[in-house]
Amino acid sequence: MTSAPDWPRGFTSGGISAGIKKHDVPDLALIVGDATLTAAAMFTTNLVCAAPVQLSKANLAASSGRVNALVINSGCANAATGTEGSARALRVTRALAAHLNVDPIAILTNSTGVIGVQLPADRIEHTVPPLVASLRPGSCESFARAIMTTDTRPKWASRTIRWTDGSVEHSCTVTGVAKGAGMIHPNMATMIAVIATDAPCTPLELDRHLRCAVEGSFHRISVDGDTSTNDSIFALASGVAAAPPATQLAQAFNDVARELALMVVRDGEGFERGIEVRVHEARTQEDALKVARTIAMSLLVRTAITGGDPNWGRILAAAGRAGVTFDPNALRVCAGGIELFARGSPLATDLAAVRRAFTSDTVVIDVYLATADASDHFYSCGLTKRYVEINADYTT
Amino acid sequence: MTSAPDWPRGFTSGGISAGIKKHDVPDLALIVGDATLTAAAMFTTNLVCAAPVQLSKANLAASSGRVNALVINSGCANAATGTEGSARALRVTRALAAHLNVDPIAILTNSTGVIGVQLPADRIEHTVPPLVASLRPGSCESFARAIMTTDTRPKWASRTIRWTDGSVEHSCTVTGVAKGAGMIHPNMATMIAVIATDAPCTPLELDRHLRCAVEGSFHRISVDGDTSTNDSIFALASGVAAAPPATQLAQAFNDVARELALMVVRDGEGFERGIEVRVHEARTQEDALKVARTIAMSLLVRTAITGGDPNWGRILAAAGRAGVTFDPNALRVCAGGIELFARGSPLATDLAAVRRAFTSDTVVIDVYLATADASDHFYSCGLTKRYVEINADYTT
Repeated sequence: MTSAPDWPRGFTSGGISAGIKKHDVPDLALIVGDATLTAAAMFTTNLVCAAPVQLSKANLAASSGRVNALVINSGCANAATGTEGSARALRVTRALAAHLNVDPIAILTNSTGVIGVQLPADRIEHTVPPLVASLRPGSCESFARAIMTTDTRPKWASRTIRWTDGSVEHSCTVTGVAKGAGMIHPNMATMIAVIATDAPCTPLELDRHLRCAVEGSFHRISVDGDTSTNDSIFALASGVAAAPPATQLAQAFNDVARELALMVVRDGEGFERGIEVRVHEARTQEDALKVARTIAMSLLVRTAITGGDPNWGRILAAAGRAGVTFDPNALRVCAGGIELFARGSPLATDLAAVRRAFTSDTVVIDVYLATADASDHFYSCGLTKRYVEINADYTT
Repeated sequence: MTSAPDWPRGFTSGGISAGIKKHDVPDLALIVGDATLTAAAMFTTNLVCAAPVQLSKANLAASSGRVNALVINSGCANAATGTEGSARALRVTRALAAHLNVDPIAILTNSTGVIGVQLPADRIEHTVPPLVASLRPGSCESFARAIMTTDTRPKWASRTIRWTDGSVEHSCTVTGVAKGAGMIHPNMATMIAVIATDAPCTPLELDRHLRCAVEGSFHRISVDGDTSTNDSIFALASGVAAAPPATQLAQAFNDVARELALMVVRDGEGFERGIEVRVHEARTQEDALKVARTIAMSLLVRTAITGGDPNWGRILAAAGRAGVTFDPNALRVCAGGIELFARGSPLATDLAAVRRAFTSDTVVIDVYLATADASDHFYSCGLTKRYVEINADYTT
């Protein structure tokens, strides 16, 4: 793992223990703007939406995307907690707002952890003063660690953009952190991610960069198909840097989001081997995505890949039930670049090479539908015994 | 396990080894009518549809539902095998037709086993004479055993209908056999099932009984969400009995199909504990089914149930992403009859009783959407380490 990058200029952050989790590990993370920040966010599409997500949605709208801070706790999702849960989420943002001397609607928040347990808001309120006292510019590490749940490692990515304006050299940075690692499925994963930049952006510009970056990254991954009650991805801009070329900023957002999304999959619960499915020659991108997602999420494909087992018939079977029309006799399937199936028939191939393709670190599957020329891709991972183990015994 | 029931009158059957599977186990099953049979069938909706399924579809249409025999092999699915696979399926039906001295279009067939491997048609052709010589009326056991793949036990169910017509006592029988146990998902499971009756039926009547029975049974189960390339369910009627009251015959079909479907789930790969999800108070039956299916198939719900873990927040999260509109604050969730969530909040309950509900042989989950009064149900099973183990190493 690379060492943690810095947040962009204009931010301070911290992460300490509020005693929500056992064992005194960091479970409360805070990032604050030196001045008012521009904010954008995307939230879970799950109808059962956690109290802090509801509160953040309301605050983002009420503040017109001008906020001061984002506070996230791990160890408790504050989801399915009713009006009491909403009251407790509000207590957290109010306590922080009072301590920072800002408007409570300028605080964004989220929670991650077990569903259906009330948030220990009093412990969080007591931890606000030392948390604010711990705020530092620079490294995102303490923040990234405090939002972890079943993650085995913190996740961060950063890109710096450099450009010259006449003879003046400028730079700005996009830094993101994320947590996985279960209930990972678009739209969106549980998944909490924060992407910050010092580039100046209007709320609308920031929202556009975020949505575009998420479309190619977090909306293309799945660990278990379960969309969480708390999924959120926040973008924050301090605006203290000069304005970079718009395309470079968009690219930096895309790169950071993609790197984080792949980290989430690779740290998916019980991860042993990655799967990248690329579907080509589809009628539409939507069709390509449907087929790619169906293959990448098939339990039979995912278990075969865990076993390093070239049981590629399961890839065909998954493609065939994706709800997309194609001619099975024109279908072509490759793994690791080796052609396995074409013209309606299995191909005699070098079985040792096929086995190598299925035991590589990431198994790359290419499917050609022979319909038109649209394409898309999807990432997942082999389903493992360890995944079952982790999830069969989570609350207890 | 109960001992195998008899097929109804008017049928003979057998099951012997053709050497398709290793270890000389039965892998070729045959059921033949003493006279011409009425037939109906439902086949996989998978676009990648196996050669024998395509052939059976064609023969069922060409023969107008009047057939003589059904032959099924295990050990090889003859799917994704191109024109060569179709030619080999045809060789099997032709060899049998010649030996039985009937029209080849009056033979139905299917195959089950690994995908993408050519069928050893020569071995099957050589086995046709001893298989036909082994045909006996009575027990369905040899047939049921010869169609097994990863099933740990054969599956059968039977109902006898008795009625009087004036002073004359009549009876007829509905007997079914099925095989699971992976790629189990409607519509339909892989799943091959055969339901036979001696009741007289037109092809249309038989088709209606079959579709109605499948709707409430095989279309309500899932082991892994993967619809197979070979899923088929056949209904055969010899017509040698008197005509029973239509509602009783329909009920017998429903009962036999439901019993077989539950057997398939309970013998699902790596089965440890069953799940029955019942959704009530939905706007439409379709909505109820969507919510029931999403909960029953959620990997997080299924792993929690394997662990006997009352992590019921996952039930809510699954309901919330089912694509059905309801008010989460009006939602009510029970497990084993114990209320866990209502009025937007978790309920203080007897944790020991909740744990007992989650460790029972079948965990029964009731979800009340508080929208209207439609309901539906879905069956699945906990996802286990053994499931992963079985499927990570199937072809090798």
